[in-house]
Amino acid sequence: MKTVLAELLTIGDEILYGQIVDTNAQWMATALSQAGIKVIRKTTVGDQEDEILTAFAEAEKRADIVLITGGLGPTSDDMTKPCLAKYFGCELAIHPEALAEVTEFFKSRGRELTEVNRQQAALPVCCEKVTNAVGTAPGMWFSRQGKVFVSMPGVPHEMKRMMTDLVVPKLKATFPTPTIHHHVIRTVGIGESFLAEKIADWERSLPLHIKLAYLPSLGEVKLRLTGIGSSRELLQAETDQLVEVLKTRVGQFIYGYGESPLEVVLGRTLQASNLTLAVAESCTGGYLSHLITSVAGSSAYFLGSIIPYAYDIKMRQLGVRPETLERYGAVSEETIREMANLVRAKFNTDIGVATSGIAGPGGATPEKPVGTVWIAYSDKYQTVTRKLQLSTERDLNIRLASIASLNLIRQSLPK
Amino acid sequence: MKTVLAELLTIGDEILYGQIVDTNAQWMATALSQAGIKVIRKTTVGDQEDEILTAFAEAEKRADIVLITGGLGPTSDDMTKPCLAKYFGCELAIHPEALAEVTEFFKSRGRELTEVNRQQAALPVCCEKVTNAVGTAPGMWFSRQGKVFVSMPGVPHEMKRMMTDLVVPKLKATFPTPTIHHHVIRTVGIGESFLAEKIADWERSLPLHIKLAYLPSLGEVKLRLTGIGSSRELLQAETDQLVEVLKTRVGQFIYGYGESPLEVVLGRTLQASNLTLAVAESCTGGYLSHLITSVAGSSAYFLGSIIPYAYDIKMRQLGVRPETLERYGAVSEETIREMANLVRAKFNTDIGVATSGIAGPGGATPEKPVGTVWIAYSDKYQTVTRKLQLSTERDLNIRLASIASLNLIRQSLPK
Repeated sequence: MKTVLAELLTIGDEILYGQIVDTNAQWMATALSQAGIKVIRKTTVGDQEDEILTAFAEAEKRADIVLITGGLGPTSDDMTKPCLAKYFGCELAIHPEALAEVTEFFKSRGRELTEVNRQQAALPVCCEKVTNAVGTAPGMWFSRQGKVFVSMPGVPHEMKRMMTDLVVPKLKATFPTPTIHHHVIRTVGIGESFLAEKIADWERSLPLHIKLAYLPSLGEVKLRLTGIGSSRELLQAETDQLVEVLKTRVGQFIYGYGESPLEVVLGRTLQASNLTLAVAESCTGGYLSHLITSVAGSSAYFLGSIIPYAYDIKMRQLGVRPETLERYGAVSEETIREMANLVRAKFNTDIGVATSGIAGPGGATPEKPVGTVWIAYSDKYQTVTRKLQLSTERDLNIRLASIASLNLIRQSLPK
Repeated sequence: MKTVLAELLTIGDEILYGQIVDTNAQWMATALSQAGIKVIRKTTVGDQEDEILTAFAEAEKRADIVLITGGLGPTSDDMTKPCLAKYFGCELAIHPEALAEVTEFFKSRGRELTEVNRQQAALPVCCEKVTNAVGTAPGMWFSRQGKVFVSMPGVPHEMKRMMTDLVVPKLKATFPTPTIHHHVIRTVGIGESFLAEKIADWERSLPLHIKLAYLPSLGEVKLRLTGIGSSRELLQAETDQLVEVLKTRVGQFIYGYGESPLEVVLGRTLQASNLTLAVAESCTGGYLSHLITSVAGSSAYFLGSIIPYAYDIKMRQLGVRPETLERYGAVSEETIREMANLVRAKFNTDIGVATSGIAGPGGATPEKPVGTVWIAYSDKYQTVTRKLQLSTERDLNIRLASIASLNLIRQSLPK
């Protein structure tokens, strides 16, 4: 089977000027390679017609599929649409369905449709519209002599939604791609190199048609097994068996499989076991609660939080004992223990969780350098505390401490 | 003066597979545009000789300067060096000075020089070595018929050091570069298309050497004026004057200039005016507090938050009157008004802010569809409420409502 080749083309001066990082291209490259499509080149050009047209022609020569992002905004510096019309030799005209969608989009937000917005519904007549479910600029699908061009908005969440729901499925239907089976194993609480050491011989034992990739991201490491073959059932059986062996090695670090992040998996567990949760977070400043409430339906188990950021708010709003704070300080095992127990009692939940630390850059002492964080879990059976020594970066400390807190809940829940 | 054109070429399969984001290119683009060199294209190709050689030839046709990163490691899949030797038609040979440097590099770390490492000192004889002060792979500088190719390591800190100390100064000495001045104006609370309509004639009035770009991101739109000329002072004066006119049109939407996001600008204002802040956030679930506390030093003005996620927590922990909740519901002007006033009183701060809404996907009613959000600001002079009709996406609603709340504070602060 011939490998299907794709090129990614990003359009926008702001990327060439270095004003934004092009994260879309990475996301798209991952999505395509998971669909069995090989990305052979990534190109970024500015908002100039000649540059864009040349890039179209070059890409069409090399690839079967050309995915374009950016330059679809309503403003005059957005060139993609007129260039596509010119390249494929057809006129721009208001697309009735697109107009209806953009009109509805504004109506649903109680806003007037301006002439500028109206022009977003103007599409080259030789393309198929690709619906933008979460924005005003529709995507465009062109095919010519077996090659496909797809143009999508540069706004990440609009592009991702369009890729996932419409573009990738349609590409798979249009091009013959091999059967690729991915099995993603999600781990938390162990670093990439330690994980690699623990499973080195397991990794060596993998058959040639099944490849392993380490996908480290903030606070966790995903393992992706990718099998290439003809039968999905067979590949699935093979990877399932390999995962069973993996569990015997690093089972305690595996929190889930596939797409669901830790906060979603944990949420399911809490809901299934009818447990409620309350949070008292200081150094994480709301990010832990945000992770928990980013999950749809989290109100079923999450009752609320207190963020006692200021020293005396820890006493006045949460009820931490002044003696504890004076004697041990806000960043201490004694304080974090009280915080977790107090928030559980105050909110009358099954579980209380607390964080307190030095996120940085300020607030450090010789004994408590930036990155020193205490976290605690409390239920009616036990209170578990843990000390973390994280990084020197404020943002990193906030995120890592929040993920570590979710993991502490996962590990401490009543069995 | 002819504009000096540059292309960025990144070499590496790992980028095409989406395993890493190419952040080097953004950093280099910024460095070049500050040096008055115009980046016209960014390309990424894999570790295949033919792909690399084609990319070299294409780039040489278009640009005066080609900056290459990646593919310089000691391993066999690193193709850049042999490809450069082939492209410029010369042999690889051990470069005595480079060998001395790499030997010293290992010696200083008490490590043995392996044959593999020794080969890192082999360079095409037709290039000038560019010293790598912090790594083992030297850079390479090629010139031919007035065009320059520079190859640098892909390791970010090695590339940055090489660019800053050696490559950029040498490029400026080699090519006559104009002065480029960027002026970024940050707006919030108005969509790109509405902004574009309000300033259409101002945009038309811009002189040819000053270009305008719209940079929309979640909840805000940045405007970037880019002036090209010979005198930085003159360009600065021109853009400053243009911004003065802009202020008379859309001044109420402008919250700042340059690099600082809304939460940072707002934080400076609060700190400068000695005002303290407390938050009661329901539908935003911690994200608003996270934005506020993501700013280093925010403890100077942010005292804390309550996240009364569950209905009865709004009463028990915050003190919202049961009658209000029963009569008007949690997502209502009456409730949000109480929440903002109550959290300000409870935490004894100058300002109280509150959010309550239907983030979705659940919880909607015919009168209150997903995306209906109330936000409120309270100080001792006034309580301001605002109703938002946002999107159907939970995550988007959480982020947009949080940004809108920061903007409400900005607009409502005692003058």
